[in-house]
Amino acid sequence: MADKKLVEAITSMNEDFAQWYTDVVKKAELIDYSNVKGCMVVKPAGYAIWELIQRQLDDMFKATGVENVYMPMFIPESLLQKEKDHVEGFAPEVAWVTHGGLSPLQERMCVRPTSETLFCDFYKGDIHSYRDLPKVYNQWCSVVRWEKETRPFLRSREFLWQEGHTAHATAAEAEARTEQMLNIYADFCEQVLAIPVVKGRKTDKEKFAGAESTYSIEALMHDGKALQSGTSHNFGDGFAKAFDIQYTDKDNTLKYVYQTSWGMSTRIIGAIIMVHGDDSGLVLPPKVAPTQVMIIPIQQRKEGVLEKAMELKEELREFRVKIDDSDKSPGWKFSEQEMRGIPIRIEIGPKDIEAGKCVICRRDTREKIEVGLDDLKDKVSEILKNIQQDMLDRAAKHREEHTYQAANKEEFVKIFKQKTGFVKAMWCGERECEETIKEDMSVTSRCMPLNQEHIADTCVYCGKPAKKMVYWGKAY
Amino acid sequence: MADKKLVEAITSMNEDFAQWYTDVVKKAELIDYSNVKGCMVVKPAGYAIWELIQRQLDDMFKATGVENVYMPMFIPESLLQKEKDHVEGFAPEVAWVTHGGLSPLQERMCVRPTSETLFCDFYKGDIHSYRDLPKVYNQWCSVVRWEKETRPFLRSREFLWQEGHTAHATAAEAEARTEQMLNIYADFCEQVLAIPVVKGRKTDKEKFAGAESTYSIEALMHDGKALQSGTSHNFGDGFAKAFDIQYTDKDNTLKYVYQTSWGMSTRIIGAIIMVHGDDSGLVLPPKVAPTQVMIIPIQQRKEGVLEKAMELKEELREFRVKIDDSDKSPGWKFSEQEMRGIPIRIEIGPKDIEAGKCVICRRDTREKIEVGLDDLKDKVSEILKNIQQDMLDRAAKHREEHTYQAANKEEFVKIFKQKTGFVKAMWCGERECEETIKEDMSVTSRCMPLNQEHIADTCVYCGKPAKKMVYWGKAY
Repeated sequence: MADKKLVEAITSMNEDFAQWYTDVVKKAELIDYSNVKGCMVVKPAGYAIWELIQRQLDDMFKATGVENVYMPMFIPESLLQKEKDHVEGFAPEVAWVTHGGLSPLQERMCVRPTSETLFCDFYKGDIHSYRDLPKVYNQWCSVVRWEKETRPFLRSREFLWQEGHTAHATAAEAEARTEQMLNIYADFCEQVLAIPVVKGRKTDKEKFAGAESTYSIEALMHDGKALQSGTSHNFGDGFAKAFDIQYTDKDNTLKYVYQTSWGMSTRIIGAIIMVHGDDSGLVLPPKVAPTQVMIIPIQQRKEGVLEKAMELKEELREFRVKIDDSDKSPGWKFSEQEMRGIPIRIEIGPKDIEAGKCVICRRDTREKIEVGLDDLKDKVSEILKNIQQDMLDRAAKHREEHTYQAANKEEFVKIFKQKTGFVKAMWCGERECEETIKEDMSVTSRCMPLNQEHIADTCVYCGKPAKKMVYWGKAY
Repeated sequence: MADKKLVEAITSMNEDFAQWYTDVVKKAELIDYSNVKGCMVVKPAGYAIWELIQRQLDDMFKATGVENVYMPMFIPESLLQKEKDHVEGFAPEVAWVTHGGLSPLQERMCVRPTSETLFCDFYKGDIHSYRDLPKVYNQWCSVVRWEKETRPFLRSREFLWQEGHTAHATAAEAEARTEQMLNIYADFCEQVLAIPVVKGRKTDKEKFAGAESTYSIEALMHDGKALQSGTSHNFGDGFAKAFDIQYTDKDNTLKYVYQTSWGMSTRIIGAIIMVHGDDSGLVLPPKVAPTQVMIIPIQQRKEGVLEKAMELKEELREFRVKIDDSDKSPGWKFSEQEMRGIPIRIEIGPKDIEAGKCVICRRDTREKIEVGLDDLKDKVSEILKNIQQDMLDRAAKHREEHTYQAANKEEFVKIFKQKTGFVKAMWCGERECEETIKEDMSVTSRCMPLNQEHIADTCVYCGKPAKKMVYWGKAY
């Protein structure tokens, strides 16, 4: 019992969600703080999740013709400054390299906060003719943004991500790619991470520095706050003009290319934690669980128990399966498996073996299921599928229950006083009004959803004629 | 013909090997130079090779219990300075970050040139008991070393690599891991890259800054120069003492851990180019060829040709296969496939289809093989295996023919005047003598091979009693 308590000593979600998050991140051994301020150490249990994300998202990218490349991590200051809005957005939060070895650099360089400028500089030299288009490149790398406040996965000075950068012959093709990647992110979140998302367009105030339009997917966390989980930007020909990226078209005239960029980062691991986790720790969707099945032998010193456990492991080898045969107590092992969010636990002891069965315990529902040993592989496969689907359904239900709508200011204010969640409401389209809402209520526009609904004729806050329906919320 | 010449316009190897290398790297579109001095852009054809290397080497690591993690890219200056030899080795060639956003940092940080200090700092907090050992962690990342002279893949200011860092309870275990990883690198080079290597230990002069012993694998390039292709270091308890990494052993006493590190980088792509390439460009071993089979339709506008080519592609889907159905001439397509080192080309035209056959052309030998269409899949599989094996055999033969031995100074000097290759010769074990050899002859000790031979009783250069047999050579 004392053992069990040790493992379970995390703050309750309802008591203090922020502390619960930090506890889970530490106790599930996903990350550790480092002595480099604002930078984290991603430990094996955390990095293995990222590897599963990478592998599956990368496969989805490649199926649409994406090719991976690697660009330098440094950006000379003059290059960063080429696009006006872009440098204004990023210069205040970059890390500057001023010395190489013992000598000062002739021009200082920043560590990439994002690589639009590097890709543009490269495309300028690499694109000559319409035959060279489209370019659909992506890189997996780390980036640096000098944040003041940091939180594991959600906001750190260095984080891992992928950034796609494309160049196209026409504006329409660039817009199509922007939307295609947004859809891939949304599908990936729903099908792989069991996280339902709202797809939408950012307001001008919230869009990416230098973009013509920014699309994002927005997910709702267990505490009712929103997390922007992936973005896809259409740059039009803005960067192409700033960097002079032109191609000779079939009609033999010079034209500017149209560009996009899109990214998803380790931040998404924060979403997995905050959408699916509970008071016993992490709950991982089977598709990104580094260990899907943990076999825990009961009375493992009794003859035949460990042997049987090894047999089951061998039989289940098509899944990611482990045995915990350490000398800890079964109770401790159960708690550890729960804390780490391993989807299925198999308990097998002498009595089970005698009866030709074992007990499967689902991490997400805690349901215990007796399964005949002959039937085990099929059952595990079926239960993993059920867990994946049920987790998505529960998250969708939670989001539905925490999505409200407001027709006027009174309703809007009242909802945000009482609840935390998405609020759908109309907006006049003016930046000032959006800024007033943020100042008054600490609420921001999450996105203008692609699926627009008509809730009222007038802006929820200022009463002017409405232009767009917007998802509003408090955000990470 | 004009088209064909364009693609083939690379310098001949025998005329100017360095220029040949640069030409191949550019024309096979592996990398491009960037506007960030000394940093390269790894293009899709180059990065895809790296991905295949990563995937296969990572699998070999994981089979031995390696777990992947991610450490911060920055090292505070005080951390870098903790191990005396290490800081002396690396401080002159690091990039320094001095500002975060608009403010100067309290302490400057370097961008990691290697991450021993970060792993040590982490292990200090993470290792408490013998139960926490061993730690066998690895990361895939980029590192920065402020080199003055740079060459694509071989030496650049930023490069991609993996770095493994382990901690063990005993010196013997650390030594065993050091050797295990050296063997993995050697097996990987021979089995996957078709590059035979010499395994050995570095002299004290050549070992890693801070290591007790460094092992390396050394490969011989086509021009007879050596390339250090992977290293594995045993640190003993030197870093553990500098960073105070102790654990409580079973006997309840505090003990220092013993550590290792080991790395392989994108440099190895340079070895693939320089071991296997020829005057038509790159020659890739099938196991790391992003495209293994290129189908080139002949008279592709004739009815049924493209359809048949698509059919073959579908039939060969278990391989990495593509069709070149662009509007270029077959001759141009052949040259491109050769330049890119694609192991197998399949030519299929109307006459072939009529005769129920196609022509397979091996990139490595240029051999043309008529194959019945019914038999195609098995034949491709067999030929890819043959190419992989034959490439290794040819490289081994080349190395054998360029490995010499010298019993005395006269022979030693004569060989290096006339030839370029490995020279096996005895050495007294003294650093001064090694330095004299380097000064006199621009030749360095590559390694003291694990398979020692007795060539003479005395040092090849100074005549003192011999201690070790050493491979000597000119190196990249």
